[in-house]
Amino acid sequence: MGVKEMLNLARVPSILMLGVIYVAYVLIGGVIFWKLEGDLGGKDLSKLLLNKQRLLMTYSCLNQEGLEEVAQVVRDASKTGLSLKGNQTADGFWKFTSSAVFAATVVTTIGYGNMSPSSTAGQIFCVFFALFGIPLNVVVLNRVGKYMLALERNVSDFLEGKSGRKRCTRFFVHLFCFICGTVLFFIMPMLVFQQQEGWTYSQAIYYCFITLSTIGFGDFVADSNPDKDYPDWYSVLMASWIFFGLAWLALLINHSIDILERLNSLLKKGCCGEKTLEESESADNNNPDTQMEDDDEIKKPPITE
Amino acid sequence: MGVKEMLNLARVPSILMLGVIYVAYVLIGGVIFWKLEGDLGGKDLSKLLLNKQRLLMTYSCLNQEGLEEVAQVVRDASKTGLSLKGNQTADGFWKFTSSAVFAATVVTTIGYGNMSPSSTAGQIFCVFFALFGIPLNVVVLNRVGKYMLALERNVSDFLEGKSGRKRCTRFFVHLFCFICGTVLFFIMPMLVFQQQEGWTYSQAIYYCFITLSTIGFGDFVADSNPDKDYPDWYSVLMASWIFFGLAWLALLINHSIDILERLNSLLKKGCCGEKTLEESESADNNNPDTQMEDDDEIKKPPITE
Repeated sequence: MGVKEMLNLARVPSILMLGVIYVAYVLIGGVIFWKLEGDLGGKDLSKLLLNKQRLLMTYSCLNQEGLEEVAQVVRDASKTGLSLKGNQTADGFWKFTSSAVFAATVVTTIGYGNMSPSSTAGQIFCVFFALFGIPLNVVVLNRVGKYMLALERNVSDFLEGKSGRKRCTRFFVHLFCFICGTVLFFIMPMLVFQQQEGWTYSQAIYYCFITLSTIGFGDFVADSNPDKDYPDWYSVLMASWIFFGLAWLALLINHSIDILERLNSLLKKGCCGEKTLEESESADNNNPDTQMEDDDEIKKPPITE
Repeated sequence: MGVKEMLNLARVPSILMLGVIYVAYVLIGGVIFWKLEGDLGGKDLSKLLLNKQRLLMTYSCLNQEGLEEVAQVVRDASKTGLSLKGNQTADGFWKFTSSAVFAATVVTTIGYGNMSPSSTAGQIFCVFFALFGIPLNVVVLNRVGKYMLALERNVSDFLEGKSGRKRCTRFFVHLFCFICGTVLFFIMPMLVFQQQEGWTYSQAIYYCFITLSTIGFGDFVADSNPDKDYPDWYSVLMASWIFFGLAWLALLINHSIDILERLNSLLKKGCCGEKTLEESESADNNNPDTQMEDDDEIKKPPITE
């Protein structure tokens, strides 16, 4: 075997092309975020300078140095979830319930970041906890997702047997499941969050998506406002929503991956022209597992989200 | 087809058992985090109360109300990345470079959360950007991961041909690749971050893991301290580290998933005793793609990390 064969150089152009598309996508996104949020930053800056001036005027004993000192205390407090308000002794983030929620955000890789371990022991434990917890979470979600798919297929088969129209029935069952999922995991939670957290509708839907896609910025976190009294059913509902919602959105994202992989193999066909027999076969037949298309004997590809 | 068959009740016990293991794992993790971090919370609380008292003493014009007012301004400033320090006009988070980094943390689902869109337009764009970006990211990482695997296999084949010892060579190539990956993606970045960011070694390794596993708490974020001057190569190195590290850690996590899936099918065999012919076949043969074991005809299972 030559070094060229060993390095698999034939594959490099297609990977490079994908890489270019990827980088371009990210850069374009960066420009749009910059335009959308950057102007706002200017407004924020002038508002902040005004506020600062006002504070220094109102509290005349407070000089620049004093303000920075207060700011440091406030930042330290907010890191541990403590509140400077009144005389209340908020006991911080690390109660049992919120620790369990934190553990769940670790294994699902949501990682809101509103709370994070600050001791060295906590940080090291967090690494090992995630190392075994993330694969466990993937396995459990896989099973639940497969069960959901099997249910959909069984219902579809049952209805096909009754109606006799195969394509049509399957399409409508798919559509029905998609709409049900959207209502259950986006529309209904949006209404609940709008009521319970006092967010706007767009903030609530943004929170739903950022959570279920496991991005988890932590700018909005439900069930975590110390000034609010939440009903008892709220945390249970939250947990079930996240669990089943993750399985459902992962199914949707996998659908999109299929479409992208097919586009990619079509592009490859169109651009390079050089394709092996296997490749053209797998691109032509209707194999849903298109990730495997050009390397079926290789182990399952890595999937990170 | 009966309703029982349609609901696929035979599968429910195994899913329930997995669910119980999952919940137990998360709850135990929650208890440990609570113990590790909860005590610290108490210490933080008394320190905060002391600091607060000290501030109120030093700046006598500042009452409880004034302190809360200052705290609000500090929190608003930190949300937009503005600094109250000196007279410097920090221009906030949303420069072009940091916007591009933000876009990259969205598509990889790391989502540090130190910066997040605050305008409605930014939030809505973020949802749609992620909806197409996450699948694109998965596809690209899949390709890179597959290429890395193919390289490893080719080297392994090449060495096998030379040495003649199959098992032994393969094991050592695996081991070598694992060690190389650990050094490249954990040990070396740890040293770099320790130098550049001034973190301890344990904080640096914690940051590496929390980033590459896409949890992304945002308690530590490299290349984001406004008080530091970073060298030019730093951001390019960061980007390459995240990209290839994600592909590599995803491979590792997929290995763990394989092991867990095998354990699960072994458990099922031992506990339930009732298994179909296919299931026992797939559990016995050495199929690496064990996620598919009991439902090969079903679409790719959902995978979220």
